[in-house]
Amino acid sequence: MSISIDPVDLACRLIACPSVTPATGAVFDVLEEALAGIGFAVHRFIAGDAPDGPVENLFAIRGSGAPHFAYAGHLDVVPPGAGWAGDPFTPQIRGDLLYGRGAVDMKGSIAAFVAAAARHADHPGTISLIITGDEEGPAVHGTVVLIEHMQAAGQIPDLCLVGEPTSVNRLGDMIKIGRRGSVNMWITVAGTQGHVAYPHLADNPIPALVRILSRIEAITLDEGTDWFQASNIEITDVEVGNPATNVIPAAAKARLSIRFNDLHSGEALAARIRAICEEESPRAALEAKISGEAFFTPPGAFSDMISAAITKHTGITPELSTTGGTSDARFLSKLCPVVEFGLLNATMHKLDEAVAVQDIAVLTDIFADIIEAALKRSKSILV
Amino acid sequence: MSISIDPVDLACRLIACPSVTPATGAVFDVLEEALAGIGFAVHRFIAGDAPDGPVENLFAIRGSGAPHFAYAGHLDVVPPGAGWAGDPFTPQIRGDLLYGRGAVDMKGSIAAFVAAAARHADHPGTISLIITGDEEGPAVHGTVVLIEHMQAAGQIPDLCLVGEPTSVNRLGDMIKIGRRGSVNMWITVAGTQGHVAYPHLADNPIPALVRILSRIEAITLDEGTDWFQASNIEITDVEVGNPATNVIPAAAKARLSIRFNDLHSGEALAARIRAICEEESPRAALEAKISGEAFFTPPGAFSDMISAAITKHTGITPELSTTGGTSDARFLSKLCPVVEFGLLNATMHKLDEAVAVQDIAVLTDIFADIIEAALKRSKSILV
Repeated sequence: MSISIDPVDLACRLIACPSVTPATGAVFDVLEEALAGIGFAVHRFIAGDAPDGPVENLFAIRGSGAPHFAYAGHLDVVPPGAGWAGDPFTPQIRGDLLYGRGAVDMKGSIAAFVAAAARHADHPGTISLIITGDEEGPAVHGTVVLIEHMQAAGQIPDLCLVGEPTSVNRLGDMIKIGRRGSVNMWITVAGTQGHVAYPHLADNPIPALVRILSRIEAITLDEGTDWFQASNIEITDVEVGNPATNVIPAAAKARLSIRFNDLHSGEALAARIRAICEEESPRAALEAKISGEAFFTPPGAFSDMISAAITKHTGITPELSTTGGTSDARFLSKLCPVVEFGLLNATMHKLDEAVAVQDIAVLTDIFADIIEAALKRSKSILV
Repeated sequence: MSISIDPVDLACRLIACPSVTPATGAVFDVLEEALAGIGFAVHRFIAGDAPDGPVENLFAIRGSGAPHFAYAGHLDVVPPGAGWAGDPFTPQIRGDLLYGRGAVDMKGSIAAFVAAAARHADHPGTISLIITGDEEGPAVHGTVVLIEHMQAAGQIPDLCLVGEPTSVNRLGDMIKIGRRGSVNMWITVAGTQGHVAYPHLADNPIPALVRILSRIEAITLDEGTDWFQASNIEITDVEVGNPATNVIPAAAKARLSIRFNDLHSGEALAARIRAICEEESPRAALEAKISGEAFFTPPGAFSDMISAAITKHTGITPELSTTGGTSDARFLSKLCPVVEFGLLNATMHKLDEAVAVQDIAVLTDIFADIIEAALKRSKSILV
């Protein structure tokens, strides 16, 4: 006997719980109740301290053994901002659309997956949900901590579907099989302050910084790959902060942002830029912070399975894309192959965020097919 | 009959009038009284409005016709700062030294010149004093306005001695026959803001600025001349001011300071840098502000005359130098040949500024000889 869940009703109940990052409490209660009702064991825990925490996370699991198919998402939403036609946390269906903050990003998607899982009360292997309350924020104590929890429990999925809104114009027109990595770097060149009339008594740090930045500007990281656009270096800031026209400054700084494809790693890029700094000045230093490594799930059985389910219910063959910013897939890809697929992203992070009611129903059908296909197959075939 | 003036007493009375830039009132009263007492016609006037004014100036003249020998100086002083052994505006003789703000820069020098002029009650030609209350500040309404006053009155000197403290280790060891010019420039490169993940939708201004600065860094303006050190370009600031790591900024700025010798003009340098900006980016713009053009009085009759007087009273042959920052000689050199000579500069702008009492006496003797020699000669011989 299976309990039926109405995904639109569940989406409305999730939207009705305001959950601007970091999400806590009520919105997790609603999800927990729904999952517990269809046989999931639900683990909720709080992680981290200020300033990047505390963060509430939820890991739900049903069944056992291989294959293990996971769905990942987040219950937090970005701030609504002012100017909505209705209250952003009062779900409202007007015409064909359900309005509310989180409708597409990504409470509608979570509701569809739960409803799809409800249709498969009896299944081989394992289904899990990896749900964080902080994906839109620092994301330090969210999915990263969930992954540690799963590793500690030995519950490593074979495949993971991230339910972020990847569709562009019609539901199913795009899935993400990779994302570029991102690394920020801070270059500091120390100098010796002095008067411009006596440059021999000073050491201006700006010429060395200019040489370093010239060499960085001359770099072509790659020309792109079959699946990724070219990696790109942007110098995003240069800062000396010297108000005095007659003073040679004591330090000069610059900041880079590199978005890179799977030909590179953040560490290797940092080493390469650091070497340039050291060659140009003994007084230059580099700090790097890797926001996320690139991930790539080559087109194959997993993306084919998702594409087939999409085509069956929409008639569309999705584009396999690696465009856009980062997502929590950067972390999950350490566990297993990851693909992202979800609702239309046209209104995400915008005023009057809305999802077509019909899209939630179709997404539920697609997710149900994906679950069935994923759990039917053996691990060796899947990967 | 000539009235004798004690230069140390006059220096003390000038120091006793606090006159941090802009100097006004009492300190000018003291000087006016001394000059009127020895037959000078004294003209005082206030020039300019806030923020760079008002500024008090004094022009004093005695005699008529050629040759016209002028002394230029300032009655304003830099702020004393905290930590003096005594009150900075209470002149005090301790041991061999007279202490007080302005002792060497340059009330001691002005007092010595007035005392020297007192010794020559009867002289051919014209003696004048060009005294401003703002040399240490913006200097917009000071010597520049005095020069306009003199030009309007047709009182153009044939030679001008600027009494700034030029001596380094012993009185008379250095005179200045030139100074480098100074120009500041501001480069702005406009861009189009955007997200680092979508660089094709933005226009990062930093690469163009880096190219411009690289070319500027590669410039060697000159190798120096027989009398001047090499001209020098310093990049003194670079500013983008972009706090967001994922944003391509909308503008990037840099500031240059160029100290240049008499092979260059501020205008020509601005044109040269502007051309580089325009070649590297259609969105780059340059603003230039010329603080002062270089001046140079080639060694000759004027410097020989000053050197001879110095050597006679000190036994020293002064070095003819063009080092150091700018002075009001940058303006006066438009009128006539200018040489700078005065007291030791070791304590100027410092705590416990002091002059050797004996140096004031010797400087008075030197100035008296210079006045005599300058007014003895015909204009054609002098220049």
